[in-house]
Amino acid sequence: MNPPRVPKGFRFGGARGGLKNNRKDVGVVVSDLPAVCAGVFTTNLVRAACVDFTRGAVEQGRVQAIVVNSGNANCCTGTQGMADVKQTAAWAAEIFQLSADQIAVASTGVIGHPLDMSKLKAGLDGATSEMSADPRPYLEAILTTDLVEKSAFAEVGKGFIYGVAKGSGMISPNMATMLGFVVTDLDVTGLALGEILKTAVAQSFNCLTVDGDTSTNDMILVLANGGSGVKPTAEELTTGLVNVCLSLTKQIARDGEGATKLVEVRVTGSTNPKQVARTIADSPLVKTAMFGCDPNWGRIMAAAGRSGVGFDPAKAVLHVKAAGESFLLFESGVPAKFDAGRVSTALKSDHVLIDLVLDLGGAATIYTCDFGYGYVRINAEYHT
Amino acid sequence: MNPPRVPKGFRFGGARGGLKNNRKDVGVVVSDLPAVCAGVFTTNLVRAACVDFTRGAVEQGRVQAIVVNSGNANCCTGTQGMADVKQTAAWAAEIFQLSADQIAVASTGVIGHPLDMSKLKAGLDGATSEMSADPRPYLEAILTTDLVEKSAFAEVGKGFIYGVAKGSGMISPNMATMLGFVVTDLDVTGLALGEILKTAVAQSFNCLTVDGDTSTNDMILVLANGGSGVKPTAEELTTGLVNVCLSLTKQIARDGEGATKLVEVRVTGSTNPKQVARTIADSPLVKTAMFGCDPNWGRIMAAAGRSGVGFDPAKAVLHVKAAGESFLLFESGVPAKFDAGRVSTALKSDHVLIDLVLDLGGAATIYTCDFGYGYVRINAEYHT
Repeated sequence: MNPPRVPKGFRFGGARGGLKNNRKDVGVVVSDLPAVCAGVFTTNLVRAACVDFTRGAVEQGRVQAIVVNSGNANCCTGTQGMADVKQTAAWAAEIFQLSADQIAVASTGVIGHPLDMSKLKAGLDGATSEMSADPRPYLEAILTTDLVEKSAFAEVGKGFIYGVAKGSGMISPNMATMLGFVVTDLDVTGLALGEILKTAVAQSFNCLTVDGDTSTNDMILVLANGGSGVKPTAEELTTGLVNVCLSLTKQIARDGEGATKLVEVRVTGSTNPKQVARTIADSPLVKTAMFGCDPNWGRIMAAAGRSGVGFDPAKAVLHVKAAGESFLLFESGVPAKFDAGRVSTALKSDHVLIDLVLDLGGAATIYTCDFGYGYVRINAEYHT
Repeated sequence: MNPPRVPKGFRFGGARGGLKNNRKDVGVVVSDLPAVCAGVFTTNLVRAACVDFTRGAVEQGRVQAIVVNSGNANCCTGTQGMADVKQTAAWAAEIFQLSADQIAVASTGVIGHPLDMSKLKAGLDGATSEMSADPRPYLEAILTTDLVEKSAFAEVGKGFIYGVAKGSGMISPNMATMLGFVVTDLDVTGLALGEILKTAVAQSFNCLTVDGDTSTNDMILVLANGGSGVKPTAEELTTGLVNVCLSLTKQIARDGEGATKLVEVRVTGSTNPKQVARTIADSPLVKTAMFGCDPNWGRIMAAAGRSGVGFDPAKAVLHVKAAGESFLLFESGVPAKFDAGRVSTALKSDHVLIDLVLDLGGAATIYTCDFGYGYVRINAEYHT
């Protein structure tokens, strides 16, 4: 397989330093040209030192490289944690002949264990020794419990936006709830990259929930180096970023821990359709029903009813859409007549849309997954 | 085994009408004396007809009997649902020589199927044909996926308070999230029974979460007939009701679907310790860690950190208490040194306390359970 196309002027690397078993665990991306950076960071009060360090670096405005390790979140590690982030940035700065505040550092993995810095250094040295336009070693290095690699792209004229993400558990809306790194060779001079990123995140990663748990290390970064010479309009850049982020969002939901399918919950009408959709998407009863391929409209309506958003149940119309078919489940306050066996067969699809119309008005979609034995296995057997 | 002691002047019955498989499904309790009633009802917008009917009856102030069926929630059943509730009340009124507005009706079970009224009638006839001071047939009749019967009592002088409850899934705070029926022979004349019940529910059932899902049919009723002649003070009645409700709350948490243990989450300090405790108690990552007997303080601290309540992680002190031992897990922003194997062994206990002190100040406790394969099995394989 040929390596995927990437934006001009970026090189990637990934290697195994031994921070986790068997897989690569240190990934690096660097822009060979000066770049503009923006970021969105976790809102969790309990957060890793790298979140604070990288926010500071992004505010300095000269970030040109990202170092990310998996296998250890370097969170709840006290003053040593921040010292280790600074050491990581210093090493990378030396390798790339940049200053330390031009390095973004991100970590993901187990919380509360000091980083083994000799392993991190080994991974960093390995990753930076063979950097190229092939992002695949870097893609592999950022994963934890993810089963699949996640990447997406968008084209704007001859410019290119390429994004990667990791995330499969501890995923919830209300922040960039995973790691996502987007690089582009678009020239964003004069555009408010930070605001545009916030807009894109609001329409994508913040509409994602796997288990309602917001992590301590989440961040989304975008690095734009202008290497293509293409200057997009704000609208073009927004559209491109939204498309990349939304694709990554759906990939994360589909790869939720133990998930067998992507579940989109779309709610139309009411004063806060997003809140209704989020309540349905977070309901363990709805998610286990999706795992069991059960058209359990009662659980969906009960979740909507406890969302705190007002609506008239007698006006609500609920469909599920899967495997190319649309089934009416509930209308006029009572269940519709449907063939439960046929709906259940359709729900075996790996992509289900729960479509609840409460009234006329705007719609919101939340992306999630089903909830099965795999989630329990992964999270009960993973030990601190 | 002798039947449990019950308050004076109440009779109980339970029988199988065929609304569900193999077990009794219609339960009845009646006071032979005029009684005072109070109730707390689900806040879910999608709610069963019996909730509205019974709220109306309680407001009339003369309720003297409760009819409860399991196996069918009679919810989302349209106008037929309300007609069936009224028919049930009419039949019971005729049997007990009361008026229909003296009957409280409660239902629990599957949503969206019309009640089979001939089966309900058969159960009601069976339950009322052999009523006695033995509450055990009634206790059995109200259960759904519950594995154990749940009852509790308190004494106030020579007066007696006796409560029963059902509930094991679709359990969350913010309302009386299950069925609970309390009867007492205390004379509550002159006391604000409704307000006292609200106080007791706020300190018990509203501190309970199994899966964050608030049901469509929840209600707590208390029926006081004065049969003992004992007139408690408001404080005595409150204490008695709180004790009964809190015992039932813990019994429900311990019997959560698939649960292997009762998990108490106590948080001290901050502006909203209850919100922090609730966020921890609802976290699937914390609950699966409890199932796996993993002292995963990182998930507990991460849940606290995303609760929306401000605190300084560096001041937080986290213990877990189980099997008679107390273990310090986290302090001064970093994990404590603890023997993970020994803590894990203690966590095999069927009762674990997560004790998080954020600061000086008041404390709040939320009652929940762990989250294991059994929850998925019950909820993925239960079909509409």
